[in-house]
Amino acid sequence: MKALRERILRDGKCFEGGILKVDNFINHQMDPILMKSMAVEFVRRFASTDINKVMTVEASGIAPAIMVGYLLELPVVFAKKKKPSTMENMLVTSVYSFTKDRSYDVCVSGDYLCKGDKVLFIDDFLANGNAAKGVIDLVRQAGAELVGMGFLIEKAFQHGGDYLRGQGIHVESLAIIESLDNCEIKIRE
Amino acid sequence: MKALRERILRDGKCFEGGILKVDNFINHQMDPILMKSMAVEFVRRFASTDINKVMTVEASGIAPAIMVGYLLELPVVFAKKKKPSTMENMLVTSVYSFTKDRSYDVCVSGDYLCKGDKVLFIDDFLANGNAAKGVIDLVRQAGAELVGMGFLIEKAFQHGGDYLRGQGIHVESLAIIESLDNCEIKIRE
Repeated sequence: MKALRERILRDGKCFEGGILKVDNFINHQMDPILMKSMAVEFVRRFASTDINKVMTVEASGIAPAIMVGYLLELPVVFAKKKKPSTMENMLVTSVYSFTKDRSYDVCVSGDYLCKGDKVLFIDDFLANGNAAKGVIDLVRQAGAELVGMGFLIEKAFQHGGDYLRGQGIHVESLAIIESLDNCEIKIRE
Repeated sequence: MKALRERILRDGKCFEGGILKVDNFINHQMDPILMKSMAVEFVRRFASTDINKVMTVEASGIAPAIMVGYLLELPVVFAKKKKPSTMENMLVTSVYSFTKDRSYDVCVSGDYLCKGDKVLFIDDFLANGNAAKGVIDLVRQAGAELVGMGFLIEKAFQHGGDYLRGQGIHVESLAIIESLDNCEIKIRE
């Protein structure tokens, strides 16, 4: 998606260790007009997909997911990174974070992720795919069906996308970063 | 706001200790159509206010805030509840949570909350107002101006709204809960 590629090149900041910060328009300050445009692009790319629920993980996934849900007029469920004390019918999975070198729990209520749901998962980043694997596990536990996964930015050199596509999952990424070597952002055209 | 009042009465769940759960349409599963309608109502109520930035706190504030930002075509900044290791120019405040009986840090980058900003703060709940006080402190640290605070649901019996209005802040709440005594939801007409 051209507008996103250009914005990443203009406002993205690259740090040692393959880190791309987009705090200016996605992860801390958000550009709602761009969010809506990206949501429209997801609607286009998943146009032939039968979806009845949008899912994401807090916190940075919420903005693009609510925009997709708004356009499709579908409920949006966000999985939580901390187990709430009062969640009913809780489904939990463990996700290993390479960046932080520790595992954390991601949970969702089986009241809102249900058997038979056709789930489109939306998130900001796809890197090594560990968070995505957690989502796959939650969807499986719920007896729901994962019909697609949409990411704003995929870091191709961390290979999570290879894994997900290898599993037969319909993955769409709006910008694909080929490399951040030498802190230079290379985006696939 | 009638649609929200009706939804709370229909889908809200009341628990001991003045707890109202709206996980069905705001805090876990979200209704994007209602979110948009609530954002339109905020735009109406703050119509005469000069705003250049929308601010919220992760995670449940993000959805209503991004909708307001989208309608107003303004950037949206979400404060974070954990200090990121890499945030530049970080402003921090401590917020005491009655529910959890502990304090937590809320932070925002001074790169995105700036001197001269006219900030509309949007969040899901207003209870005792401690989170709101933290936001007031962050806005003050940044040298910005808080021009209004909009909440989806205010729990009047926890008096945060009294405090904020007493400070001369323009507060708008789309539904005001008078009481949750005996687990019965009483909403101001």
